Amino acid sequence: MIKVAILGASGYSGFELTNILTCHPDVELACLQSKSFEGKKVNEVYPQSDIELKYTNPSLEEIDECEVVFLALPKEESVDVAAKLKTRIIDLSPAHRFDLNYTYGLSEINRDKIKASSKIANPGCYATACLLGIIPLVQANIDNIAFDCKSGYSGGGKSKNYDYLENLIPYSLTNHYQAPEIRKYVSAKFSFTPHVVNSFRGLISTIHIFTDENLEDILTTYANYYKGEYFVKVQKDIPSFKTVSNTPNCVIGGFEKGDGHYVIVSAIDNLLKGAASQAVQNMNIMFDKEEFLGIKPLLHL
Amino acid sequence: MIKVAILGASGYSGFELTNILTCHPDVELACLQSKSFEGKKVNEVYPQSDIELKYTNPSLEEIDECEVVFLALPKEESVDVAAKLKTRIIDLSPAHRFDLNYTYGLSEINRDKIKASSKIANPGCYATACLLGIIPLVQANIDNIAFDCKSGYSGGGKSKNYDYLENLIPYSLTNHYQAPEIRKYVSAKFSFTPHVVNSFRGLISTIHIFTDENLEDILTTYANYYKGEYFVKVQKDIPSFKTVSNTPNCVIGGFEKGDGHYVIVSAIDNLLKGAASQAVQNMNIMFDKEEFLGIKPLLHL
Amino acid sequence: MIKVAILGASGYSGFELTNILTCHPDVELACLQSKSFEGKKVNEVYPQSDIELKYTNPSLEEIDECEVVFLALPKEESVDVAAKLKTRIIDLSPAHRFDLNYTYGLSEINRDKIKASSKIANPGCYATACLLGIIPLVQANIDNIAFDCKSGYSGGGKSKNYDYLENLIPYSLTNHYQAPEIRKYVSAKFSFTPHVVNSFRGLISTIHIFTDENLEDILTTYANYYKGEYFVKVQKDIPSFKTVSNTPNCVIGGFEKGDGHYVIVSAIDNLLKGAASQAVQNMNIMFDKEEFLGIKPLLHL
Amino acid sequence: MIKVAILGASGYSGFELTNILTCHPDVELACLQSKSFEGKKVNEVYPQSDIELKYTNPSLEEIDECEVVFLALPKEESVDVAAKLKTRIIDLSPAHRFDLNYTYGLSEINRDKIKASSKIANPGCYATACLLGIIPLVQANIDNIAFDCKSGYSGGGKSKNYDYLENLIPYSLTNHYQAPEIRKYVSAKFSFTPHVVNSFRGLISTIHIFTDENLEDILTTYANYYKGEYFVKVQKDIPSFKTVSNTPNCVIGGFEKGDGHYVIVSAIDNLLKGAASQAVQNMNIMFDKEEFLGIKPLLHL
Repeated sequence: MIKVAILGASGYSGFELTNILTCHPDVELACLQSKSFEGKKVNEVYPQSDIELKYTNPSLEEIDECEVVFLALPKEESVDVAAKLKTRIIDLSPAHRFDLNYTYGLSEINRDKIKASSKIANPGCYATACLLGIIPLVQANIDNIAFDCKSGYSGGGKSKNYDYLENLIPYSLTNHYQAPEIRKYVSAKFSFTPHVVNSFRGLISTIHIFTDENLEDILTTYANYYKGEYFVKVQKDIPSFKTVSNTPNCVIGGFEKGDGHYVIVSAIDNLLKGAASQAVQNMNIMFDKEEFLGIKPLLHL
Repeated sequence: MIKVAILGASGYSGFELTNILTCHPDVELACLQSKSFEGKKVNEVYPQSDIELKYTNPSLEEIDECEVVFLALPKEESVDVAAKLKTRIIDLSPAHRFDLNYTYGLSEINRDKIKASSKIANPGCYATACLLGIIPLVQANIDNIAFDCKSGYSGGGKSKNYDYLENLIPYSLTNHYQAPEIRKYVSAKFSFTPHVVNSFRGLISTIHIFTDENLEDILTTYANYYKGEYFVKVQKDIPSFKTVSNTPNCVIGGFEKGDGHYVIVSAIDNLLKGAASQAVQNMNIMFDKEEFLGIKPLLHL
Repeated sequence: MIKVAILGASGYSGFELTNILTCHPDVELACLQSKSFEGKKVNEVYPQSDIELKYTNPSLEEIDECEVVFLALPKEESVDVAAKLKTRIIDLSPAHRFDLNYTYGLSEINRDKIKASSKIANPGCYATACLLGIIPLVQANIDNIAFDCKSGYSGGGKSKNYDYLENLIPYSLTNHYQAPEIRKYVSAKFSFTPHVVNSFRGLISTIHIFTDENLEDILTTYANYYKGEYFVKVQKDIPSFKTVSNTPNCVIGGFEKGDGHYVIVSAIDNLLKGAASQAVQNMNIMFDKEEFLGIKPLLHL
Repeated sequence: MIKVAILGASGYSGFELTNILTCHPDVELACLQSKSFEGKKVNEVYPQSDIELKYTNPSLEEIDECEVVFLALPKEESVDVAAKLKTRIIDLSPAHRFDLNYTYGLSEINRDKIKASSKIANPGCYATACLLGIIPLVQANIDNIAFDCKSGYSGGGKSKNYDYLENLIPYSLTNHYQAPEIRKYVSAKFSFTPHVVNSFRGLISTIHIFTDENLEDILTTYANYYKGEYFVKVQKDIPSFKTVSNTPNCVIGGFEKGDGHYVIVSAIDNLLKGAASQAVQNMNIMFDKEEFLGIKPLLHL
């Protein structure tokens, strides 16, 4: 059994982690840390849950007794606590995604490095959808790419206000903090713009690719690239939020050709493949377990 | 007083037309045609309304006695009935947008032609947001444009099913029927993709423009282009659905510069500037009235 | 195989009937009648569906060749067509609920009569939740009952307007047309008030029972009454919309005792146990099949 | 100018208080306390706002320099801090509603006591709607009353989870903590049950009154009782959430007579008349100002 702690367990990502790890056959969930809800049970904070574990606020020493610690904290707290921990870390915050002591945990791409690492920076939700949706093409001759992203409002976390009601909000049109995560892998010129929509969960990156090349068999290229993956599905049908909501999958579809351009749609659940389930996938890789262990519902794609 | 008929008055656009025209100081609303709700009052079908007028199903002769007829019908019915009418027509359906006997009713662009016309094809909602958002730049040296559009589900009309709940649905990635409306005015290579979101009303076109040129003073260019317009507002702030919901305005904002690209956001209410209020704006132009007459709330932009 | 027709198949209840009956092992779905969508496939009208059957508009003779016809029509059309049909009828509209030629199809209560009938009037959605929630007590000495009901807006059908957004609307406070259905079985004084809420599907009747009697073991009374039922679950936990959404079940819970009163909560999916699945349950009883046949998901309560 | 502090200013009620008090002509808003968002501006936490004031975390001494302090804190924190403050207090939490040192701040009922008090316990949102909806009748001979209440999910505060999506949740069927607030004024037997619905704001108490008496002119009774009130409107029409959302009003309507019972609907915005605007109304009374001062939009009822 792997002894595990979640810090920041009462936020949205922390709750999804809790859901996955309480059912993981090889995990002992030793600590659910939450300052705000110390002493309360999970199902007092999330009544739809039947988990009776209590949130606690243990010392660093107690946390360090775990074999791996998931950080589902705000960025600043993540920096602080990570500096003091000696055990393995999987950080869901943006704090260490450009820290050379950490491996960028895009599971499908960095599997080998993750296996050899003790510190993982889990990718951003937008970056996950964009990168999985474009990486099979990065060697092709493509000029300009627009990643137009739409996210459920849970991406803003529990403290977010209520301005999303009957609304759709574009923001950070050219300077979102996750754009550099995409730049790590994409050298072509690109535009990346996020939007918040009036749905709780789900994230879609609509990818417009301008090129004068004829990308023969683009669907086949993707299908081959992701062959054998547990959590990436390539298909002709266009995915919607509902295709992926409450699943650990990334579904990439569309692949339509226009006049001098292509459109591809990459869809994930922002709280799962965009956060919690990818984090557990990385833990499984790190501990040399089957990559899909405990990640339910496991869909046979 | 202008004697007016609305055919298809009980649909969403027809209801918005009814709301505007019952308060228009120079209009006599002579006929609210609706097959489905013949004999019912407006406020029986729309309880939030206090309009007591009845839907009727008059003969073509009676309709032809009106000075202008708004067609808020499905495309096929619009073709049929328009062929038989002798009076002025403003068609909100897509039926006549490429018919040379009709003027394309993008009010701000075609004002002079509209004034001289007796048959107007009101633009599509997506095309309105995209065109108003790009036209000031069409003479510039721009290569590739992605119009990534998001519309409230009222765009699908009353017969639309319930799949939009907690969902976001991309569709017609490269072959939407309104793309040719954009092509009329935009010669640069572009990608146009629509999405339906879980809000009733509102429409945003996020416009990604790739260019190696430095578009100096792009905000000023737009501000000058739309100077004096009643219903187009140019601003630095990024508009959201709520900026324009229940208003007759197109708000164009953002104008952010990235590395080799720009992002502009063009926002309208799909049922108003994207349909009913633009149709009334066109009627006002046609009858040589003040362009904003009866179009409430008139915001002083 | 039972040869079946659905009239009004493209409405919400008709669509749920279509979903159930296409998978029913003993049914041949011979006719999906829809005037509005004649010629279209089910999945063109409901894109979330993968049913490729076409809506048609057959003659009465063709319909009469079916062994049973489900009427999912507006009340007036139901009256007209039912008068002309010779075959078995299950009418989901309110047209025949007080017609002595019809059996009131509250499956759990009228099982024997349904088995012997060729004409069934399916109960109203509100009446189903209220009656199943109170019938075990009607012999007790209870004075005053408040049935306070909340329904998803799909209860209003597809032609309903958009006033429910971010809204909650009480209506017909004392004179709703389904109150007399409850009166059939409840002789005590009662108040019945419906509300429409901002959720698509789900229906709850919160039942306040005033009595000076001590209702010993009220939970046991209910549990015994519904013992062996396939689709009625009695429990201590309070059900919510989500407990029953997309299920054919009625879940009755709460059973809390206050000072001189009790509160019970009865929950159904208004489109299933409140309409389509109860109609199929009645068909199964009528044709002497297992009552749960084809009604998915069958939950083992 | 009245020097004012808000403790817990970044929660939902605190934000509504901030909105009202920044525009109040006789108020100097000296302190917006928030532990979670210390150092941030209001419009960083609530982007839809244009308020640039900063949240701070001042000492008790600084707070005590204000003439009145609004407590928009969790109950426990409210108990702690109130015990240490020497200045006037208006407590929006449930902490002091049964504390004899505090006046129960139901403005319309306790105006004179409020004027003479330095410590006010603002009523609960459910209790406000129920009490205003029944108080004109408490002298009548009524037996049994069911207060069936539905609240927007903002009532749960910012830390509330996401289980309300497409849901409706009954809870605390007979033992809600606000029932004793109603008991203060209502001696008849009653049932009080709350529900959370899938809308952000709004609260309705549907009041079922059983009586064998004939309540002649019940509508007139209410109209007379609330004559001259600024924020209570009595009408025949049934109010919905939208009737009162974003207003400081309580609208009481319906007044329908059934067989041996009556149904009345009392509607408020839970964050305004149910919290923030009633608190400011109480401050105005306390400081002998016009009761409606600064409470916008003031509707002329």
